[in-house]
Amino acid sequence: MHELSDLQGIIAKEVDNLSFPEYPGQLYEPISYILALGGKRMRPALLLMACELFGGDVNKALKPAMAIEVFHNFTLMHDDIMDNAPIRRGKTTVHEKWNRNVAILSGDVMLVKGYELMMQVEDRVLRPIMNIFNETAIGVCEGQQIDMEFETQSGVKIEEYINMIRLKTAVVLGGALKIGALIGGAPEKDANFLSDFGINLGVAFQLQDDILDVYGDPEKFGKQVGGDIISNKKTYLLIKALELAEGEQAGQLDILLAATQFDVAAKVAAVTDIYNQLDVRQYAETAMQSYADKAFAALEQINLPAAYKQYLHDFADGLLVRES
Amino acid sequence: MHELSDLQGIIAKEVDNLSFPEYPGQLYEPISYILALGGKRMRPALLLMACELFGGDVNKALKPAMAIEVFHNFTLMHDDIMDNAPIRRGKTTVHEKWNRNVAILSGDVMLVKGYELMMQVEDRVLRPIMNIFNETAIGVCEGQQIDMEFETQSGVKIEEYINMIRLKTAVVLGGALKIGALIGGAPEKDANFLSDFGINLGVAFQLQDDILDVYGDPEKFGKQVGGDIISNKKTYLLIKALELAEGEQAGQLDILLAATQFDVAAKVAAVTDIYNQLDVRQYAETAMQSYADKAFAALEQINLPAAYKQYLHDFADGLLVRES
Repeated sequence: MHELSDLQGIIAKEVDNLSFPEYPGQLYEPISYILALGGKRMRPALLLMACELFGGDVNKALKPAMAIEVFHNFTLMHDDIMDNAPIRRGKTTVHEKWNRNVAILSGDVMLVKGYELMMQVEDRVLRPIMNIFNETAIGVCEGQQIDMEFETQSGVKIEEYINMIRLKTAVVLGGALKIGALIGGAPEKDANFLSDFGINLGVAFQLQDDILDVYGDPEKFGKQVGGDIISNKKTYLLIKALELAEGEQAGQLDILLAATQFDVAAKVAAVTDIYNQLDVRQYAETAMQSYADKAFAALEQINLPAAYKQYLHDFADGLLVRES
Repeated sequence: MHELSDLQGIIAKEVDNLSFPEYPGQLYEPISYILALGGKRMRPALLLMACELFGGDVNKALKPAMAIEVFHNFTLMHDDIMDNAPIRRGKTTVHEKWNRNVAILSGDVMLVKGYELMMQVEDRVLRPIMNIFNETAIGVCEGQQIDMEFETQSGVKIEEYINMIRLKTAVVLGGALKIGALIGGAPEKDANFLSDFGINLGVAFQLQDDILDVYGDPEKFGKQVGGDIISNKKTYLLIKALELAEGEQAGQLDILLAATQFDVAAKVAAVTDIYNQLDVRQYAETAMQSYADKAFAALEQINLPAAYKQYLHDFADGLLVRES
């Protein structure tokens, strides 16, 4: 078994080797640009890992791993347009550096390139893998749409939120693992358990991200602490707080959310204070742990040597304990 | 063999039967909306036609025909954003009726739905058909990008223009025919000739569209006559005129193109007058005829009964003699 860092190295090299036509330049340059911005390449690493766990050669899974990475970056390129985001991983976003039309069309062709890469598998798994890829892509689009609707929707429920992050974030982890497993020769049943592991892990990971936005160590978190609070992002914490707050607290929270002019630090402090009073962090951590437990329960079901399951368990622990 | 009108009827019914999830509504409603705007459904009709010509059952080609129609409408939805178009087939465009983000994301999921539909073929043709679909989709994206670049590019050459319309318009006709032929059981060689027929026919069709924009009968053309002239669209006629114009004519043309305020009818008349002086209509008709001839030459190569080739020939004639 390769170490995670080895797999990430293999992927980094393969991403560097991806080449696109020179003409028309404005269609293909943004693809190389966004792929070169880096990232942890966790999705393609999971795909390779799953392939290897079931005895497959990682080289047979490299193109599908690239497919998942290209697909993921397509979603980032289009999400950045939709979110009006100026910066992605410290660099100018594609729609800002070129223009909006370039970002739409380059994104479109990335999705097609994703399919082209995903097809580079043996015939025996072509159809099931393409089906998983379709389902994954549809899930991500649905998740993004629901997330956008939440911005203007009042009374969002925790279960709706969990469903949204499952679609937007978690199904790609599940899909990557399942595709890798099938390439590696896993039986359908084990591939499904591994997919469940990935989906539940993905939900737990997103809940952790919600917690870290407020309670994370600024030096380790890598994003602006309180960013979700500043933008009124409907996270698990905010949705739970809105559900629990009553009387004066509810009024304070509404005022903080409705303010169009505010001191950023003061808003973060005031909302965090309400979160603390309502103990929403504890709710979020309990929810996160329950999804982690579901992930580990699925993992237990897989017919793999104990050492391999431990490898996945350690991977999940590493992902979920970035800090707290 | 079904008549073209029968095939169009079969397609209309199948489009009506396409159903999408109810949630999230803003993701899926725009898909049903744009598909219901109608159109001649020429691309899916060609796919069914090709299947039947080679002895296949049109029912086996229905889902891939829907795939081509859904894909085509995905390109329209995204093109309309890029072109800031307010109206499509007499109705409000998706990005105007909902908003830009909805049009981006609904378009994305349409592309995925296109793949899902296209996969509903027998295993023996799954991989070749998906390859053709990928190539077609990439061609259309490249064509759209090149077309957008032409807007601000001076000195566009006729051969660059032909390449652009080949990619943006013609490869879908070729792709639809080739996919239908393979489903129908055509040998690779015949499927390729049929694809060549479609591509050359598509180029001829687009050149005819350029001519009709200026010289068409307003009652039959279905679009505003002179629309390309008003918007300085780089059509075959304009590119040829820019190539041929010298001295005073060239100066006049430059002034007409540079004007930011103008009387619409006067501009159309003045540009048309220059076109007439330079005889660009004749050049365009000669070019159109040469692509029609290439299409018919490819048709001749196909190993099919003469009556079937005549059917395709008649179809092409019908397409190319809408009026003149």
